[in-house]
Amino acid sequence: MQPKVSIIMGSTSDLKIMEEAAKFLNEMQIPFEINALSAHRVPEMVLDFAKNAHTRGIKVIIAGAGGAAHLPGVVAALTPLPVIGVPCRSSISIDGWDSILSILQMPAGIPVATVALDGAKNAGILAAQIIGTGEPAIFEKIKAFKADLAKKISSANIELAKVKYEYKTN
Amino acid sequence: MQPKVSIIMGSTSDLKIMEEAAKFLNEMQIPFEINALSAHRVPEMVLDFAKNAHTRGIKVIIAGAGGAAHLPGVVAALTPLPVIGVPCRSSISIDGWDSILSILQMPAGIPVATVALDGAKNAGILAAQIIGTGEPAIFEKIKAFKADLAKKISSANIELAKVKYEYKTN
Amino acid sequence: MQPKVSIIMGSTSDLKIMEEAAKFLNEMQIPFEINALSAHRVPEMVLDFAKNAHTRGIKVIIAGAGGAAHLPGVVAALTPLPVIGVPCRSSISIDGWDSILSILQMPAGIPVATVALDGAKNAGILAAQIIGTGEPAIFEKIKAFKADLAKKISSANIELAKVKYEYKTN
Amino acid sequence: MQPKVSIIMGSTSDLKIMEEAAKFLNEMQIPFEINALSAHRVPEMVLDFAKNAHTRGIKVIIAGAGGAAHLPGVVAALTPLPVIGVPCRSSISIDGWDSILSILQMPAGIPVATVALDGAKNAGILAAQIIGTGEPAIFEKIKAFKADLAKKISSANIELAKVKYEYKTN
Amino acid sequence: MQPKVSIIMGSTSDLKIMEEAAKFLNEMQIPFEINALSAHRVPEMVLDFAKNAHTRGIKVIIAGAGGAAHLPGVVAALTPLPVIGVPCRSSISIDGWDSILSILQMPAGIPVATVALDGAKNAGILAAQIIGTGEPAIFEKIKAFKADLAKKISSANIELAKVKYEYKTN
Amino acid sequence: MQPKVSIIMGSTSDLKIMEEAAKFLNEMQIPFEINALSAHRVPEMVLDFAKNAHTRGIKVIIAGAGGAAHLPGVVAALTPLPVIGVPCRSSISIDGWDSILSILQMPAGIPVATVALDGAKNAGILAAQIIGTGEPAIFEKIKAFKADLAKKISSANIELAKVKYEYKTN
Amino acid sequence: MQPKVSIIMGSTSDLKIMEEAAKFLNEMQIPFEINALSAHRVPEMVLDFAKNAHTRGIKVIIAGAGGAAHLPGVVAALTPLPVIGVPCRSSISIDGWDSILSILQMPAGIPVATVALDGAKNAGILAAQIIGTGEPAIFEKIKAFKADLAKKISSANIELAKVKYEYKTN
Amino acid sequence: MQPKVSIIMGSTSDLKIMEEAAKFLNEMQIPFEINALSAHRVPEMVLDFAKNAHTRGIKVIIAGAGGAAHLPGVVAALTPLPVIGVPCRSSISIDGWDSILSILQMPAGIPVATVALDGAKNAGILAAQIIGTGEPAIFEKIKAFKADLAKKISSANIELAKVKYEYKTN
Repeated sequence: MQPKVSIIMGSTSDLKIMEEAAKFLNEMQIPFEINALSAHRVPEMVLDFAKNAHTRGIKVIIAGAGGAAHLPGVVAALTPLPVIGVPCRSSISIDGWDSILSILQMPAGIPVATVALDGAKNAGILAAQIIGTGEPAIFEKIKAFKADLAKKISSANIELAKVKYEYKTN
Repeated sequence: MQPKVSIIMGSTSDLKIMEEAAKFLNEMQIPFEINALSAHRVPEMVLDFAKNAHTRGIKVIIAGAGGAAHLPGVVAALTPLPVIGVPCRSSISIDGWDSILSILQMPAGIPVATVALDGAKNAGILAAQIIGTGEPAIFEKIKAFKADLAKKISSANIELAKVKYEYKTN
Repeated sequence: MQPKVSIIMGSTSDLKIMEEAAKFLNEMQIPFEINALSAHRVPEMVLDFAKNAHTRGIKVIIAGAGGAAHLPGVVAALTPLPVIGVPCRSSISIDGWDSILSILQMPAGIPVATVALDGAKNAGILAAQIIGTGEPAIFEKIKAFKADLAKKISSANIELAKVKYEYKTN
Repeated sequence: MQPKVSIIMGSTSDLKIMEEAAKFLNEMQIPFEINALSAHRVPEMVLDFAKNAHTRGIKVIIAGAGGAAHLPGVVAALTPLPVIGVPCRSSISIDGWDSILSILQMPAGIPVATVALDGAKNAGILAAQIIGTGEPAIFEKIKAFKADLAKKISSANIELAKVKYEYKTN
Repeated sequence: MQPKVSIIMGSTSDLKIMEEAAKFLNEMQIPFEINALSAHRVPEMVLDFAKNAHTRGIKVIIAGAGGAAHLPGVVAALTPLPVIGVPCRSSISIDGWDSILSILQMPAGIPVATVALDGAKNAGILAAQIIGTGEPAIFEKIKAFKADLAKKISSANIELAKVKYEYKTN
Repeated sequence: MQPKVSIIMGSTSDLKIMEEAAKFLNEMQIPFEINALSAHRVPEMVLDFAKNAHTRGIKVIIAGAGGAAHLPGVVAALTPLPVIGVPCRSSISIDGWDSILSILQMPAGIPVATVALDGAKNAGILAAQIIGTGEPAIFEKIKAFKADLAKKISSANIELAKVKYEYKTN
Repeated sequence: MQPKVSIIMGSTSDLKIMEEAAKFLNEMQIPFEINALSAHRVPEMVLDFAKNAHTRGIKVIIAGAGGAAHLPGVVAALTPLPVIGVPCRSSISIDGWDSILSILQMPAGIPVATVALDGAKNAGILAAQIIGTGEPAIFEKIKAFKADLAKKISSANIELAKVKYEYKTN
Repeated sequence: MQPKVSIIMGSTSDLKIMEEAAKFLNEMQIPFEINALSAHRVPEMVLDFAKNAHTRGIKVIIAGAGGAAHLPGVVAALTPLPVIGVPCRSSISIDGWDSILSILQMPAGIPVATVALDGAKNAGILAAQIIGTGEPAIFEKIKAFKADLAKKISSANIELAKVKYEYKTN
């Protein structure tokens, strides 16, 4: 099955973060691929990847990186596809500020759709939402997923109701 | 013509920033609507808007806000559509840091595709790229736009070549 | 007994922080309720809660949240009651900066009374002070509580006096 | 008429910011007083003021200060009344960060209800909301004020509807 | 023996930091006192202490505090003596930024001599240097202490010389 | 007359800031000298200056610098005298953060008494307070200066009393 | 004459900053070239440039960029030459923090020699110093330049000596 | 064998960071020396070292320091050689921000080639690149090292290919 989403990361040390995107796509039954691909270590491979991703049927690219995180922006410069950037709080990073700013603050002309620090699950959801704009079946799955989010809250309140204080009234 | 992109902003004082998104969509000939809609001032109107946008044919929502910028996240919570957030450096904002963090740092489950501070043009491009994943005609326009970006650089270098220093060699 | 204070939090993972507010209200014998209620996961429940809290006799709302913390501001937009916001240093948060800024930096018209990062005990005290402006019995309790604060210092100095250095003179 | 709110500020250079609180209270017909009172320049006057404010019928104190802004916290330490702190972006301040942190980050036991940087209008609204918890007439005024906030948005959209782009649809 | 330096701290939880000042003064044989004294919990005791310290023979005050750290500034407002402030990275603090800014950024007229975050040893040295400007015997001790600082470096280099790399030449 | 305070600055572009220290010392009738002296441009002159300042009767050194501000720390390393550092918001500086951190965060053993950003007047006051610990005549002047600070507040309140609002009560 | 230094910048709007590097090289009579070259707009041209610069006799590359500043890092990934990065406070940038962090925080293996914000003159000096390690004639020029730096200070002090205060002694 | 690179550090507690530079130079077979040398504790030794390093055949200086990190800048002021600064996240440091800013933000005339926080390996690589501009044998080693960087990525992808998700396609 042809992948629709390509997940790339600057370093495999970011895999534990980035696999949340993979898990979500898997849950949504959206075919994907996942690779390490460094803007700094294999720049030509990145160029090749980014220029041709859309010709292989890829619809969205998710790119995670930390520190001076250039991978999402470099790929965005080379592809007409939407690129989602995941700033990673990797060991090089200063509490994630460098990761966030070097992904988010792209110049006019080359957007990167940035999600929260270590927010790979949200990157997966966003990729599904993007594909969902053109594929009704996926759009329906997103709607079902959204409806599900409320349920955790209800069960949380059942737990909270059990906590007893003398002057607590619910 | 039915709008495909809905541009909303928390305050009309952000219009001078947000209209860059409108201009780009206009250039790409993508129908859009543009409205002020405050998460804080008209919360029920926001709820209504967000829950029904997709039923009116909207494919992508672009939401700009500044300070404690809740509009993009609140809308994202209510719609299955992809939401692009534009942090605005409005007068309330502390150099834009509050705008960025309150749009970017969404919890797992509710992504907002955040672009650079005041990056409304990039929000417009991203919206077009998202629609382009399902509409080949728009995808072609994005490819043409990307190819055009390189041309500014060439003309820039023609300018630079005219600057003279004794030891400059190009 | 009808609750006078409603404590809400964006996620039950913030309970260990927020229960300091509950404990203080309990100590002051002020009836309260405590619930999880996410601006992002159950927006309509939030709307319902916020619009009707005052009709149920609630006088003050305490809302805790972390990251892009929208709950306090969204509730404040919907209620005429004073809303106290507690920025939480939750796992999503970047050292609490996002939590603070997205609660504190509300636009003109919609105040949130923000307390220190993880400052839920102070939120409880502030709620009691607010109720105390209209209820003399609670005002007296607050005065007694304030008088008590000084005592810890006295006993601290008894401890410090025991530490011996050759050239220490007290 | 006995004042119910006391507005104080560390320096009269903050008056242009703080008078937004005064204007709102005036609009709500809530009697108030306004004074300069520096924690650093007249500490004994501050002690006197804070210890006795509630005996004069004051219900809420609004304190604005900038830089190492100690006035709100010092007053809060001395009064059983709720204290609202307004961080001011005064000339000494580093973009307001010092003002915010030295007002917000109070230790457990001594809350200051902090509003946004230069957010004096919100301080006035919050003071009215606090008084409104015990005075139904003021509570009704707050409800009316809140209802009014939505109207600006409607008129904003009338303005936006006039802006013409070829592909704009509303 | 009459104390010449008074060490105060906002909370005994800062004692582990502040005792570095005490140790240095002990080493220099400068008589001192050490007490907890909170600007927020016992404001009148602080006023009393600060107004009278110089009448008891105190020459320098060292004040440590964390979070919204008002103690050094409040004391400085009340005494003609030089006040050294030690910003503490206490549990309330956001990485120390609040402690630093609320001690350092004092308004014109009320200086606090601020040292590094948790820099209580340097506060002790500075106190000795200040007293040394008027007491030659202490000035000589400071000179001896300064000369000693270089020795650690020499012994460090003896250690470094033992580390072997093939291409290392010293 | 032999100078007791030496004011130095890294660049004459900081003179407009640093002259506030000179003016205060002049007002207090404390003899001083003022010079430019860069840790980076004339390091040997700095070494010479710092090692010998106390032999010329200097009691306190005030050093102002901006950006990577090394002058105060380098001088402090070479002199047994107390050194007051003034972080300057000079053109190289990033809003003053670099100036503050590179002066404040000195290692154990080498204190610099840091004052607020651009806080040269406070540096002058602090120098006078330090000299005052050994010279009663100067100590008396400091006490008189402190008493004067309160007067500005009184006249400020006379101004505030003139501002009229319908519901203002003082 | 073959250029030894290549100055590149992400956008010609950074020319007013970057020309300080050109001026210094001109002054040192080191041949150079200067071009605009965007990592985002012409990525293939960047790849070509970076891979071949050393074959054309280039010894050092100076790259300036602002915002999410990828140019210096991307070039560094592709060349064996030392790359000097100049973070620019361009209009997209948030006070320069994004420019600094996205140039400085490079992963292990790909250094960028970063200079101060807008520090293009220092980039020129550093380039000359690097070339000077292999070319004695340039090394001598650097030594002469360094000796000259002290002279500005001397003339500064002549200016300062003219400023008169009653109690100033030099 | 005469050392070509001199590695210095402000404190031996930074050795665990700085030895990454030593290891890389060892791997490249470039002779080096390594010493502790504090700008604050042994300023005259620093002056001596910096003024004479080039006369001993040193080509590049690598200086690591943390907190108010003056060593790299002070050395750079005294030597015509290129100086590489390594900001260290040492115990005194506030998350490394002070280390970075006090090394990076040097005034015009005195560059320090700053690398990432704790980026000593990159400092070693940069030193080799600088020497490589004048020594072809070292330049060839750098080229070989760069080619090697890509290999880690390839083996990383072999690992990633083994991870199985149902909808993963590579």
